[in-house]
Amino acid sequence: MDPRDRGLAYGDGVFETLRVTAAGQVPLWPLHRQRLQAGCAALGIPLELSRLEQALADQLSASAGQGGVLKLIVTRGVGGRGYLPPASPVPNWFWQHGALPVWADSLRREGLTLGLCSTPLYPEPLAGFKHLNRLPQVQARREVARQGWHEGLLLSAHRQPLEATAMNLFARIDGHWWTPDLAAAGAGVGGVMRQWLLQHLAGQVRCDLRPLSQLRTAEAVFLCNSVVGVLPVRKLAQWHWPVSESVRQLQQTVDTLF
Amino acid sequence: MDPRDRGLAYGDGVFETLRVTAAGQVPLWPLHRQRLQAGCAALGIPLELSRLEQALADQLSASAGQGGVLKLIVTRGVGGRGYLPPASPVPNWFWQHGALPVWADSLRREGLTLGLCSTPLYPEPLAGFKHLNRLPQVQARREVARQGWHEGLLLSAHRQPLEATAMNLFARIDGHWWTPDLAAAGAGVGGVMRQWLLQHLAGQVRCDLRPLSQLRTAEAVFLCNSVVGVLPVRKLAQWHWPVSESVRQLQQTVDTLF
Repeated sequence: MDPRDRGLAYGDGVFETLRVTAAGQVPLWPLHRQRLQAGCAALGIPLELSRLEQALADQLSASAGQGGVLKLIVTRGVGGRGYLPPASPVPNWFWQHGALPVWADSLRREGLTLGLCSTPLYPEPLAGFKHLNRLPQVQARREVARQGWHEGLLLSAHRQPLEATAMNLFARIDGHWWTPDLAAAGAGVGGVMRQWLLQHLAGQVRCDLRPLSQLRTAEAVFLCNSVVGVLPVRKLAQWHWPVSESVRQLQQTVDTLF
Repeated sequence: MDPRDRGLAYGDGVFETLRVTAAGQVPLWPLHRQRLQAGCAALGIPLELSRLEQALADQLSASAGQGGVLKLIVTRGVGGRGYLPPASPVPNWFWQHGALPVWADSLRREGLTLGLCSTPLYPEPLAGFKHLNRLPQVQARREVARQGWHEGLLLSAHRQPLEATAMNLFARIDGHWWTPDLAAAGAGVGGVMRQWLLQHLAGQVRCDLRPLSQLRTAEAVFLCNSVVGVLPVRKLAQWHWPVSESVRQLQQTVDTLF
């Protein structure tokens, strides 16, 4: 790749991390595509979707039968004077195949330990999109590793739970599902699996911003993303949650996608 | 370069844009080095400064006599699982030579037109450092081009002037120099030329956060960075400022550095 690519220079691009089935399919591609298109539109990156989808098909057929993870980075390409993009950018894209992250079966069954990240996740104008400016997540993930947690919960500056470093948050509270309203917070990444769950549980998920203390009374808590599906949370600081049947069912439903 | 470099994947790195004199010197290198070191320390990127400075010397001697701009990108290097950096990262660095940006002599003399960017510059935990997460600046610079301004002024969410897209802001108000307190705002880039001016004008610059309306009564306004030095501002929206003798003198002083 060209080191003058604006993806390197400014994080001027977007990415998607795709779960690929053994049959060489990306079950959630329509939702990934939607977010990719919206992100490119927000940044003014002209995306030739038909060419990209052809390239995706080539990548999938080249690795058929393996399954795993396929990461796609789309950048604005090379050039421009300083921050100013070229008038007619020629986007670049990059593919990277990888194995599924290893989450021990016991964790998928019994749930993981979440920690409370010390630095808030601030609002940003490009919230929701999966752009390449990911230092807040990198820094938070470093803290997760230092503390020995499985994942880290990011709070708003008003100490409202928003998401984990690489997963979205759901909880079952007073008999209903809840997930943070990231649009209202103007922060976080609108995950594809979160989106799928909002559609799947149509009308059954309340979406707003709540204080951290709301989680204390939750009946169950889980994290999700499009690569690992649904992972129950069993512990955050001194709070413990059982893996409820409702979470187990969602996990199984999501696993059938893969 | 390796497309798995975390500089591309997450903007996981820092950069400096160095003005190089015809004699092959970087006059403000100690201040650039300081910011580079501080940024790498904040990100946990191990920087071998002696090796970097040797590489810089090689770059400068290879281009001796040309002068211009030398851009340096330092990334955390390749790898890690997702956002988690590798335990022992091996940083990469990239050099890029360029010509000085062309600012017509008339603009350097008579001042430029500044516009008011519509999107606020939000606080961020890594404010001050020149990291590679620069989408707010890219988006603001696109607006500057659309509007036909020379540069754009970024305000805080409380509508306090913070900086321009690629330059820091100074104004002369009530007979004293003033520049926005970026540390108090928790936003913006601590420019090397701003730093040099704060030292050069030791004790003569007030550094705090003020409402936009304060600029209306300014006697003079200028922008600065380490590549072009000092550029007077003659206009922002309906406000006009003369190019004062005080700005002219600072411009000349800074030009002697180059």
